[in-house]
Amino acid sequence: MAEVTRRGRNARQTAPVARRPNYANLRNPFTPQTVFSEDEVAGLHDTALRVLENLGISILLPEARDILGKSGATVVEDMVFFSRDMVAEALRTAPRSIRLRAANPEFDQTYEPGALLFTAAGGCPNVSDRIRGRRPGSMDSFRDAIKLIQGFDVVHKLPVSPEPQDIPIHLRHLATTEAQLTMGDKLMTVYARGTGQVEQAFALIREGLALSDADWDSGTWASTVINSNSPRRLDIPMAQGIIDFARAGQMTIITPFCLAGAMAPVTVAGALVLQHAEALAAITLAQMVRPGAPVSYGGFSSNVDMKSGSPAFGTPEHLKMQLGAGQLARHIGLPWRSAAGSASNIADAQGAHENIMGLWGAVLAGANLVIHGAGWLEGGLTMGFEKFICDVEALQTIAELCKRPEADAAAMAYDAIAEVPPGGHFFAAAHTMERFDQAFYAPLNADLTNHGTWTANGAHTAEERATEVWQQVIADYRPPANAGDIGERIAPMLERFTKAGGAHPVSD
Amino acid sequence: MAEVTRRGRNARQTAPVARRPNYANLRNPFTPQTVFSEDEVAGLHDTALRVLENLGISILLPEARDILGKSGATVVEDMVFFSRDMVAEALRTAPRSIRLRAANPEFDQTYEPGALLFTAAGGCPNVSDRIRGRRPGSMDSFRDAIKLIQGFDVVHKLPVSPEPQDIPIHLRHLATTEAQLTMGDKLMTVYARGTGQVEQAFALIREGLALSDADWDSGTWASTVINSNSPRRLDIPMAQGIIDFARAGQMTIITPFCLAGAMAPVTVAGALVLQHAEALAAITLAQMVRPGAPVSYGGFSSNVDMKSGSPAFGTPEHLKMQLGAGQLARHIGLPWRSAAGSASNIADAQGAHENIMGLWGAVLAGANLVIHGAGWLEGGLTMGFEKFICDVEALQTIAELCKRPEADAAAMAYDAIAEVPPGGHFFAAAHTMERFDQAFYAPLNADLTNHGTWTANGAHTAEERATEVWQQVIADYRPPANAGDIGERIAPMLERFTKAGGAHPVSD
Repeated sequence: MAEVTRRGRNARQTAPVARRPNYANLRNPFTPQTVFSEDEVAGLHDTALRVLENLGISILLPEARDILGKSGATVVEDMVFFSRDMVAEALRTAPRSIRLRAANPEFDQTYEPGALLFTAAGGCPNVSDRIRGRRPGSMDSFRDAIKLIQGFDVVHKLPVSPEPQDIPIHLRHLATTEAQLTMGDKLMTVYARGTGQVEQAFALIREGLALSDADWDSGTWASTVINSNSPRRLDIPMAQGIIDFARAGQMTIITPFCLAGAMAPVTVAGALVLQHAEALAAITLAQMVRPGAPVSYGGFSSNVDMKSGSPAFGTPEHLKMQLGAGQLARHIGLPWRSAAGSASNIADAQGAHENIMGLWGAVLAGANLVIHGAGWLEGGLTMGFEKFICDVEALQTIAELCKRPEADAAAMAYDAIAEVPPGGHFFAAAHTMERFDQAFYAPLNADLTNHGTWTANGAHTAEERATEVWQQVIADYRPPANAGDIGERIAPMLERFTKAGGAHPVSD
Repeated sequence: MAEVTRRGRNARQTAPVARRPNYANLRNPFTPQTVFSEDEVAGLHDTALRVLENLGISILLPEARDILGKSGATVVEDMVFFSRDMVAEALRTAPRSIRLRAANPEFDQTYEPGALLFTAAGGCPNVSDRIRGRRPGSMDSFRDAIKLIQGFDVVHKLPVSPEPQDIPIHLRHLATTEAQLTMGDKLMTVYARGTGQVEQAFALIREGLALSDADWDSGTWASTVINSNSPRRLDIPMAQGIIDFARAGQMTIITPFCLAGAMAPVTVAGALVLQHAEALAAITLAQMVRPGAPVSYGGFSSNVDMKSGSPAFGTPEHLKMQLGAGQLARHIGLPWRSAAGSASNIADAQGAHENIMGLWGAVLAGANLVIHGAGWLEGGLTMGFEKFICDVEALQTIAELCKRPEADAAAMAYDAIAEVPPGGHFFAAAHTMERFDQAFYAPLNADLTNHGTWTANGAHTAEERATEVWQQVIADYRPPANAGDIGERIAPMLERFTKAGGAHPVSD
């Protein structure tokens, strides 16, 4: 937990907590779990190649079709048929390890198999909390989200969500990039909504962080999620985004959203074949634009709820698709993203269930980036601040598990066991006294008081208690030390871009 | 889900759910996760043997000390010092695979490495639900708990909890055994509270199920949890229970409850050394009573919350101890129990978090029996009916994951992908129509409606919705077909035992 939050927590406690774990750089400690045999994984991969070769992908951007056509694809109207050789070449040039750069080098990451990164809720048009209710996202709530994210070093990346709907769409990328640069110091996110917006956002990052060409080329400073329009379609903004980011050496996170039984086959294997085909198509486009362009494999496939028709998360089928997607990612050798998240309307037991199930699914699938890991309600329609706090508790629990327990002679505590008589206790043992303030994770929001005390204190639910926590985190927020300098540096550029009318998003 | 519950769920839905998964017999599909190297595990085991050999265990029952003394232990007053040879011999005779028998053969289990069994909340003096509030356990609520457990085939074992405090203690074992025999048909539980109670309960089971000697010897019909009094003490009822169950060929589930920082060393490794030493002592006693006696290794170690001093569950340290305990169980080759559970006061996000974290910890640790998997609130002080429903959703999710997805050509759905054009949907595809009613897990309690519908329906939390579910399950409950026969068979014996004053529990 970052310094600001630690202060916040201390204010709520009688004694200071000396324990200061650092969750900024994590390695996934778990052996990946499988749901398919190696032969089956090869079969899924091969079937996806057959889809690309024989059925093709509809790509709506002419420039993208041109690039792919010149690289060996067969193009018939909007349909692109990928040869196996092209895909193989793309998988050869796609980097296995990507240096992700942040304003603060402490938040730099090496994005590769084994890495484990978390992000908060993304893509949310709305925001909600128990003080102000559920409402459309605004610049104010977007700033609050950045403050919350800066408060926890287990959240590794800055957001462009909740969507600041009170900022005109042609200026919104300027506002979100400015806020990330001046309020945060973690990995940055830029939406791919057309070349104009992307170029202005990149220019602001270079200007704000005073990056030389060599700095800019030393890694990737921004990333974006690319969603295909399943089944088998890549629309204009997404194809344009792949091209813009690849040319600039910035990372695209390729994410078909294949809802089994709706936009994808109803079977786990079928949904994954479609997901994999669409991901390979997008990865191939990026590599044909610029060999070596940083791309993340990804998937966010789940099932529809048969009762409501809504996307479901944390379900058995979701987890099976996560585990299968991880096998496909390892089959092609690329780092990859999965996601947690919740369809629940509030931060209740269902919300925790869905998010934690999906979180384990992602972690056990060997995902390197777990998106929507904190605060994602209503299948992404809303970022919930109480939900964010509840979910951070889960992320921090996983982060703690990244560190193995000690098992030397001192840790095995033979002498302490000898010291305490049968029926005694270890509270005052020297072994305990030396370690107790560092031994255990200190809960962020959990209340472990007994029923009488809990009732006397108002019988607050976890959701209710989280209101106090997020308010404290926001109150404790301090901007990064160099925020003022960055703000001054980008001010003239922001003024120039704004006067020029910003940049309108590209349409479908 | 059992027939009774399926009917209950259907009543709440517009269309019948054709899907009828069977969760009665599960195999753990996950590769066990580790937190220690093999050398470290050997070191933990060796340190536990040093504890047994040099520091000893206080065993308060003279008969147990006599048995161990005659088997090679050194006995000094209440302290028993175990030789390594004795422990090795016990681990040689302890069975690797145990046949667990139930009234209904469908609920028989082969308890061995690879098996996966779940039980509901155990050991709870209180019960709570949103209709009747929190109150001391009673026979009425105990019967309700049996009805709930019978409603879900993912819960594999009948309880002796919530404790029916309105039945005098000397007759309580008769009432709980009668209720299990006449209301349920799953694996049975008998508390080890003295030879008199245990013998009467076993007699009722043999009489009720009309078991011949050969039937009785064909497996184990009842089991009990044996908690050591950490650190390093086995009290009179527990030692007596080990002897009584071993002599009768019934299973003891050995479970030191080592709270790191309180009754155990503050380190994960130290708590596990103590847990392992105490478990080995109890297993050795059972094997010295009767070589081959069915015993389960087990552990339920966690940490104390540094703020409240309460036991904590689902914490990082708890999970590390689960994973380490699994390594120790595999080191000695025995099936073993772990537990989920919650310290939360209600079925809120914290309650879900704690239970699901501990559930994953147990499953990933390769546990064969996950106790307290549904309904365990307040660290076991209360069984919550809403919590039970929320937790069953998690158990059923894990149970679904025990089945791998199909990956044949039909499942990979190439033809369906070919059939649906880019931008189309799979709702009406033949591939979907043939499978949609069987494809996905049907949630028990999750509400995936959108925010408008959810609000219009009353904005109910998962906990609130669960009230309707458990009431329906109880309303739908039907006793097993042969309940009447069993009741008639045991009536005379029950009358005789009752007239004789039942059996008083043995004291510490």
